[in-house]
Amino acid sequence: MGGVLEGLRVLDFTRVIAGSWCTMYLSDMGAEVLKVESPGTGDVMRLQTPVRNGECGFFIIYNRGKKSITLDLKKDEAKQLVRELVKSCDVLVENFSPGTMKELGLDYDAMRKINPKLVYASISGYGQYGPKADLPSYDVCIQAVCGLMSMNGYRGQDPLRIGMSATDFMAGTVTALAIMGALWNIRKTGKGQYIDISLFDCGLTMLENAVPKYSWTGEVAAALGSRHPSAAPHNVYKTKDGFIVIITIENKAYARLCKAMGVPELVEDPRFSEVSGRLRNVDELDAIVNSWTGKLPTARVVEALKAANLAYGVVRDVRENVEDEHSKVRNMMPTVVQPRAGPVTIPGCPIHYSETEIAPLRPAPLLGEHTEEIVTRILKYPKERYAELQKKGVF
Amino acid sequence: MGGVLEGLRVLDFTRVIAGSWCTMYLSDMGAEVLKVESPGTGDVMRLQTPVRNGECGFFIIYNRGKKSITLDLKKDEAKQLVRELVKSCDVLVENFSPGTMKELGLDYDAMRKINPKLVYASISGYGQYGPKADLPSYDVCIQAVCGLMSMNGYRGQDPLRIGMSATDFMAGTVTALAIMGALWNIRKTGKGQYIDISLFDCGLTMLENAVPKYSWTGEVAAALGSRHPSAAPHNVYKTKDGFIVIITIENKAYARLCKAMGVPELVEDPRFSEVSGRLRNVDELDAIVNSWTGKLPTARVVEALKAANLAYGVVRDVRENVEDEHSKVRNMMPTVVQPRAGPVTIPGCPIHYSETEIAPLRPAPLLGEHTEEIVTRILKYPKERYAELQKKGVF
Repeated sequence: MGGVLEGLRVLDFTRVIAGSWCTMYLSDMGAEVLKVESPGTGDVMRLQTPVRNGECGFFIIYNRGKKSITLDLKKDEAKQLVRELVKSCDVLVENFSPGTMKELGLDYDAMRKINPKLVYASISGYGQYGPKADLPSYDVCIQAVCGLMSMNGYRGQDPLRIGMSATDFMAGTVTALAIMGALWNIRKTGKGQYIDISLFDCGLTMLENAVPKYSWTGEVAAALGSRHPSAAPHNVYKTKDGFIVIITIENKAYARLCKAMGVPELVEDPRFSEVSGRLRNVDELDAIVNSWTGKLPTARVVEALKAANLAYGVVRDVRENVEDEHSKVRNMMPTVVQPRAGPVTIPGCPIHYSETEIAPLRPAPLLGEHTEEIVTRILKYPKERYAELQKKGVF
Repeated sequence: MGGVLEGLRVLDFTRVIAGSWCTMYLSDMGAEVLKVESPGTGDVMRLQTPVRNGECGFFIIYNRGKKSITLDLKKDEAKQLVRELVKSCDVLVENFSPGTMKELGLDYDAMRKINPKLVYASISGYGQYGPKADLPSYDVCIQAVCGLMSMNGYRGQDPLRIGMSATDFMAGTVTALAIMGALWNIRKTGKGQYIDISLFDCGLTMLENAVPKYSWTGEVAAALGSRHPSAAPHNVYKTKDGFIVIITIENKAYARLCKAMGVPELVEDPRFSEVSGRLRNVDELDAIVNSWTGKLPTARVVEALKAANLAYGVVRDVRENVEDEHSKVRNMMPTVVQPRAGPVTIPGCPIHYSETEIAPLRPAPLLGEHTEEIVTRILKYPKERYAELQKKGVF
């Protein structure tokens, strides 16, 4: 059986992370994704590291299973091809700077005249309207502006980029969700619509309790390292051979931790017996926990925490996750064989359905690999016409 | 017009963040979400900070617009109510520990016999199967295990929690997306299905290029602060009155930055003229940029960067985002009036449709606020029967 979205066709003008991540999900779920790229270079992500035999491993993750058609959108014939393709597509996604698709004559107003059922989604840094719409839209810039960086890092130190493209990833996923909502809605209205998603808006949604807290108390959230505003111990601790997260949410867990550490007298110690004291004396408390973990290998700390029914997480690196049995059992570290580059391991799709397969992970397309197929099979252009356009440099 | 999901009904057994975040989106998009909570305390998130007049601002964000029904799931009458409710629901979402719904007799196998079209989604720390399925499933524990913490923070320093619940948020969004895919699929198959989403799997998807890089080169990704593995300058810099992110991706941007900083001689400086040199001498280079920004107020740095067409982002805190004109214009900082607690500002919904409203932001339900409505309106129990069950402590 095909994926849940089998039969859906997506015209994909996305590049780099947020947009490609959105259509990655649609493709994993079974949609046919036609990725439109510029002739010559294609998506700039094709140039990023790591590269093997001219192919980028980063690009492969987010573009697995898609089809690539090259089109020089400055040429009228290319725009005409897009207009014809749109007739048979259910969804269009783009993440150019606001206004670019309009300049190309390929904006929503133009496209919906051709296909009123089209769901057309735009992803941008700050959205299609608003006073900040023209600001630079890289994920790290948005992380700075939306407040996320101010809450990452250590108290009193410099704000810090979150070590992955948090707003790109969230905006891409939210866009895929919004697209599904709009497709669902067509059943009632018979009509598609336009969707405007921004990295900035998505960044704001991830500020946790900081917004209501500011609203009620005027308190401005700050970075806390790995600590918690209202629980302690809650941190990452150094063991003899690694690091481990230990968290205790309430007094009972704190008491169990004291016993596990072999210092039961601290349960009733007035400095620590209540959470208010533990928070006030958190430096001292963390030092006590660290002096315990520091004498033991991680495995021994884990044993003790398990026996005490405490919450923990062993800090692991990428290697340990790629080679992890759990990752493999859940098909989260599949290897795809990429033409030219050979086998490469990439993170898989986190959606696990009981009745429907996620599309088997296929390689990412070579630049323009499916141009001829799309033009002659979907648009049914005669081969001669295809060759003619090719000569004109449309592809 | 109602939301895109108007007419869908969701039976919601979620608590805390990941699950509540998932059904928050379904509710924002117009679904009717019936949140099932334990009598007495309800979702433990109701107890978290900030609290005003007994209501939690954090809880309000993720539960706005939902309806709350209390049910003591240890009682047979409560289970019977769930089985009757499931008949009229399209979706069930839960994020208990794996096995809990089975113990209650409310697992997918039991529910699908009652409603074969039901889409049933479970969210958990490590998923429903696999050797790690029983490990502690708090977001910060998962961040440790899945590799995200090893890539956040500063090179050579301790691993660091990402300053927000990254795996909770992603798992919640991916679950909403997976649910929409399964609903879409019912059009073809006539049948619902089970969905298994884990925070761990979602964490793995956010490791950026680290997985293919390890796969091809054996290199294990490390934290880089706010720096970039293949571009410099790319960091957060201190100004006279704040911090600013400045990024330069290629030589031309570096040259423009040198000119903007008034040191055009550095363009051709052999230490920095190529990206390899800039990465090798990044400490020196960052010091030069910092000495420029440190003498100027942020507004002046922004002017210079704008004039030079460079990418930047001013680091802002939560207050600046709540009070930001852009946030307001995009309806991203709405104020809801919560019974008992009064007005509170929370982040809005980042989905902007052209033709369909996102559900107007309503307050979160009081514990059990809609129990009677749900039992008598949806299940059509006579008032006497409701009163009888109430006496038995079912609600």
